[in-house]
Amino acid sequence: MRKRASANPSQTLRSIGEDQLIALLTKGLTAGAETLVSIGDDCAVLGKSGQRAPYTLFKTDCIVENVHFLATADPVQVGWKAMARAVSDIGAMGGWPTAALATVILHPDTPLAFATGVYRGFQKISRTYAFDIVGGETSQASKSGCNMISVSMLGKVEPRCCVLRSTARAGDVVLVTGRLGGSIKGRHLTFKPRAEQARWLVAHFKPSAMMDLSDGVARDLPRLAKASGLGCSIDRAAVPRNRGCSIDEALADGEDYELLLTIGAGSVERLLEDWRATFPQLPLTRIGIMCESKSPSGPDASGGGWDHFR
Amino acid sequence: MRKRASANPSQTLRSIGEDQLIALLTKGLTAGAETLVSIGDDCAVLGKSGQRAPYTLFKTDCIVENVHFLATADPVQVGWKAMARAVSDIGAMGGWPTAALATVILHPDTPLAFATGVYRGFQKISRTYAFDIVGGETSQASKSGCNMISVSMLGKVEPRCCVLRSTARAGDVVLVTGRLGGSIKGRHLTFKPRAEQARWLVAHFKPSAMMDLSDGVARDLPRLAKASGLGCSIDRAAVPRNRGCSIDEALADGEDYELLLTIGAGSVERLLEDWRATFPQLPLTRIGIMCESKSPSGPDASGGGWDHFR
Repeated sequence: MRKRASANPSQTLRSIGEDQLIALLTKGLTAGAETLVSIGDDCAVLGKSGQRAPYTLFKTDCIVENVHFLATADPVQVGWKAMARAVSDIGAMGGWPTAALATVILHPDTPLAFATGVYRGFQKISRTYAFDIVGGETSQASKSGCNMISVSMLGKVEPRCCVLRSTARAGDVVLVTGRLGGSIKGRHLTFKPRAEQARWLVAHFKPSAMMDLSDGVARDLPRLAKASGLGCSIDRAAVPRNRGCSIDEALADGEDYELLLTIGAGSVERLLEDWRATFPQLPLTRIGIMCESKSPSGPDASGGGWDHFR
Repeated sequence: MRKRASANPSQTLRSIGEDQLIALLTKGLTAGAETLVSIGDDCAVLGKSGQRAPYTLFKTDCIVENVHFLATADPVQVGWKAMARAVSDIGAMGGWPTAALATVILHPDTPLAFATGVYRGFQKISRTYAFDIVGGETSQASKSGCNMISVSMLGKVEPRCCVLRSTARAGDVVLVTGRLGGSIKGRHLTFKPRAEQARWLVAHFKPSAMMDLSDGVARDLPRLAKASGLGCSIDRAAVPRNRGCSIDEALADGEDYELLLTIGAGSVERLLEDWRATFPQLPLTRIGIMCESKSPSGPDASGGGWDHFR
């Protein structure tokens, strides 16, 4: 009965898991005819079914000091990261960013140079990914001094290019871009969202499902599978790792911001070949397979180096 | 030389005013061809000059515990207020809200019932103003426990109905809806954004300029005047006051969320007559006049009950 929040007035947020909290809070929110995707994917997708004009993608994302960055971090990198996470989400739907608003809340004792550095980071990424920063809000935190940056971003995607995380099919191959793990050593502040690669994918080999990796394959792939009503299996040894990372770290570390995608098995060889010709510096690696959620399918249902999620 | 932030690394945010900080931070941000209005109005306006389809309005707004609400406040009202402020901004451009994202950051010791109450407030206002809540983010605050809610909202407005704050003309009459002052006694949590009234205005008597009153007439009207390159005069005695408020309080108190608008003097009588017939419960009051910024114009340039801003 934990879902009946009002039944236990002493219960706090500490006592409830994130997924359960979100399910509880968003229960009863309904979407109208112009909302194609709301809660549960990388971005909300706004538009009408059957329209030919691009859909609007809409995303908000927040980074908090001591959770997503340290006070000693380079503020230009902090600003880059705050926006890059949303660019990554928009890219993972097959789209491109168009406009962003930034809410920057800083303690009054924050050096002015930190704030200006954060904005230089905003400017750098907005130029790199060709979107506009069209406003926002800069507030001083109240007494407690909780430094945070919240970003709202708009993007566009042609209806035929829009890829959800809920549309993988059983038998599809699971692939990942780049190498995984160890982002905390610094890459989490400087990563380049794979927006260009995602646009190439949706134009040439539309993935059946796609998302960006924010919490690690071990948590994010089961989310994609669940959203698609499927199970999945990962070939642990195949997972591409960053230098110095174990397989477990490559699977569990967060903030890789690589693309996780699924595609029909028949297209994989041609995809890998064309990818290598187009992005020779960036690996694209087959790491698993989607399967029915209840059947013990997959190449090695008995275990032995494969992780199964059903 | 305060604007050269990097010249003085020990300077903090505490030592710089809000308007100066924003000017410093947003210096160098440039807008592309599809951004009609970026920083400086109630919302960003996205679209192409000359398009016939509605423009997109884009706004972010944040409320912080102990600044905009107390921990003891009714959480349903807190949720209402968080969204109502953005609805008010979109209404003040002549538009209507379509979709919102909410970022809710709460300390882990926050009662679960507070979080569910905030979301009930979101739901209530989204039904009242007919927009969708299409996602968002719920995070637990780090150690310091800074409770806050940031809202991003999208809206639409037909190009011919879009009203900026920068387009008032000298000689235009200044009007305000409702009664002003004393919002802190409770109305700041329960106010109804004047979106319906703003839609009626832009359809029937398009104001030359409009904004919503968040910081009081004494601060907001000079902003409208400055954005329009004008000065203005207020007839202090004419300012409609809430019960128990002095003229100074009515002018200086924040969070009224009434509409402040300007319109050509020739249309005022007819506007007031039609308004009374349409919104008999809600006053619309003439409170001042726009004038050239440098000339000592206005009905009473010598003072005597008028406040002048040039």
